[in-house]
Amino acid sequence: MDWNYQQPVKIIFGNGKISALKEVIAELGETDGILICSRSFRKSGLADKVIVEAEGLLTAVYSDVSPNPEVAEVDACAELMRAKGSKFVVALGGGSVMDLAKAAATIATVDESISLYHGTGKALPETFLPLIAVPTTSGTGSEVTSVAVLSDHETGKKAPIFSPNFFPAYAVVDPELTYTCPPTVTACSGIDVLCQSIEGYWSVNHQPICDALAIHAAKLVFEYLPLAYTNPYDATAREKMAEASVIAGLAFALPKTTSSHAVSYPLTNLYGIPHGEACGLTIDYFAKVNAQLETDGRVAAFAKALGFADAPAMAEAITALKKQIGLRTDLVDLDLSDAQLDELVQLSHHPNLDNNPVKITDDILYDLFGTLTKKNMYVEQP
Amino acid sequence: MDWNYQQPVKIIFGNGKISALKEVIAELGETDGILICSRSFRKSGLADKVIVEAEGLLTAVYSDVSPNPEVAEVDACAELMRAKGSKFVVALGGGSVMDLAKAAATIATVDESISLYHGTGKALPETFLPLIAVPTTSGTGSEVTSVAVLSDHETGKKAPIFSPNFFPAYAVVDPELTYTCPPTVTACSGIDVLCQSIEGYWSVNHQPICDALAIHAAKLVFEYLPLAYTNPYDATAREKMAEASVIAGLAFALPKTTSSHAVSYPLTNLYGIPHGEACGLTIDYFAKVNAQLETDGRVAAFAKALGFADAPAMAEAITALKKQIGLRTDLVDLDLSDAQLDELVQLSHHPNLDNNPVKITDDILYDLFGTLTKKNMYVEQP
Repeated sequence: MDWNYQQPVKIIFGNGKISALKEVIAELGETDGILICSRSFRKSGLADKVIVEAEGLLTAVYSDVSPNPEVAEVDACAELMRAKGSKFVVALGGGSVMDLAKAAATIATVDESISLYHGTGKALPETFLPLIAVPTTSGTGSEVTSVAVLSDHETGKKAPIFSPNFFPAYAVVDPELTYTCPPTVTACSGIDVLCQSIEGYWSVNHQPICDALAIHAAKLVFEYLPLAYTNPYDATAREKMAEASVIAGLAFALPKTTSSHAVSYPLTNLYGIPHGEACGLTIDYFAKVNAQLETDGRVAAFAKALGFADAPAMAEAITALKKQIGLRTDLVDLDLSDAQLDELVQLSHHPNLDNNPVKITDDILYDLFGTLTKKNMYVEQP
Repeated sequence: MDWNYQQPVKIIFGNGKISALKEVIAELGETDGILICSRSFRKSGLADKVIVEAEGLLTAVYSDVSPNPEVAEVDACAELMRAKGSKFVVALGGGSVMDLAKAAATIATVDESISLYHGTGKALPETFLPLIAVPTTSGTGSEVTSVAVLSDHETGKKAPIFSPNFFPAYAVVDPELTYTCPPTVTACSGIDVLCQSIEGYWSVNHQPICDALAIHAAKLVFEYLPLAYTNPYDATAREKMAEASVIAGLAFALPKTTSSHAVSYPLTNLYGIPHGEACGLTIDYFAKVNAQLETDGRVAAFAKALGFADAPAMAEAITALKKQIGLRTDLVDLDLSDAQLDELVQLSHHPNLDNNPVKITDDILYDLFGTLTKKNMYVEQP
């Protein structure tokens, strides 16, 4: 089996590491940075704390970031960076903030709009500003990947952009920053970590280094996510979930995600189901289907490496975990029409679906949505 | 727990990947490279094959590399590189070749001898030529580490040099290159992979990413080393051992090795026991001692992750593995005197010993050597 591996991000992990930001910036050797964060961190005072601790090295702040970052926001941020002469970027936040920061850090170096590159296939400029990613949720993995997902309100396009430029120079992972994550966010981002691990492992692009990391991360989610959900200030649970998140990021960065992520996009775009919850909604179903139809036994091997008897046992544990942390396990409440189910099936044919280890046919997708809506009118549930 | 992780080497893995060397060099964007390899590859024709396939991009060859590379050899190689105007380096060989190449790739950029930096603590120059490492044995891990071990015949010094310069730009891991490894080399380098994994895991500098990789690599060694030893042309066994080797390299690169490596150095230097065999000689003993004296249960956890009931069961499996692949399990044949045992104990106090999870006292070392020589005259065997 042929595989390539590349992981250039320097990871700095530990409680209180946000206070080491000044030393990390010193290693970069740059001054005049911009802090990109969510509005909530400006309100909470965390942004101010970071600016004070950076002792004058952060000379601009951009915080106009929506949950699904827009190309217009990237352009506005890049414009501010040009005006301020920013020479490096600190992204403090969840996936939205880091994704916006990745795009802005490149586009700021040229006088162009990111929309030239968003969903057009045009290669990004080679120049970019170095990025220090500081995740504040345990779930995105964006701090160690080279992808940014952006939306274009005007064209209705939501698409990922990949670029080697997008690898942060540093990921500063400080579990204490996640203590204030509300339980719902903890649950959604935590189940996303599990999906990233499982999908990275069973992806057709699987490779051994990512395999080992996926097993490590998934084990931690089963053990520590319920605890982090129930007790947001449990230091061990938060640390282990932060560890799981960054390691799951490494585990799926190259193999990419598969069926559950593909199906999640229309569920988020059409029905506003949060990303992680939408991924988690189908991961147990796909674990059973993939195990049933696979020819190489990898799903079963993954389940066994995690200590389960087989893949269906793992799927049951996932369902139980979702219930335990208050995530939806069906779509019954949406009362979807047949036309809406047709639309969901159609829009589930996202490119990531091709990374799934077995071919996901429309029959399977109708069965999935039939199961989730408890309509089950098309084919027998596997 | 705080930890940092960095792994900048791009890994390209697969049968026949040596033929992709030209594309890798093209990615570097350099011409006028030097091929550094062992004499045996000049004789076997592999060096010529590589030069032909590089289509003019390799304009110099250095092959005067001894098993424990000397500072004088580094200087001679660097001198050739300066004379030829070499702009990048391809290291084709085992650990000796890669270690020499790492040092030469830096020292060639200045007009100095490596001896200024060897064992002196002086920081290496910041300039260096990019290195493509092509391992031909499954065992060294040097293709993904930032260390080079060099010897100085004149001063009797054998010491590692660490430098971020020493990370290769690329590791091209082609399992087919290991098919011609004789069984003894396969056994010695393969047991070294196991030691690197185990010691990287139980090192006091352990960290989660390396933990996961250590488990992955060690499992592969138990499963595939006997097969690679018995049948050098077993493609699966060779591929899995190549995978184990590069992944074990990642697993110990940051945590570093511990007791078995520390004790191996005098065994190699005084009695010529090959490096891997010398490490393997004591790894089962240290597995038992560490499991007995540890307070955090990590050795037991490692053994269980590999499917063993406990650490002593893993130790027994290691002993059995060594017998199966023709490696020594004692030192009886050396008929060592008490003075020689004293010397071994004294010289085992290498800095790596401090990475061991439990303190290795002289009593323990005397017991170890007593056990290995079947003299056991000092204290009870644990």
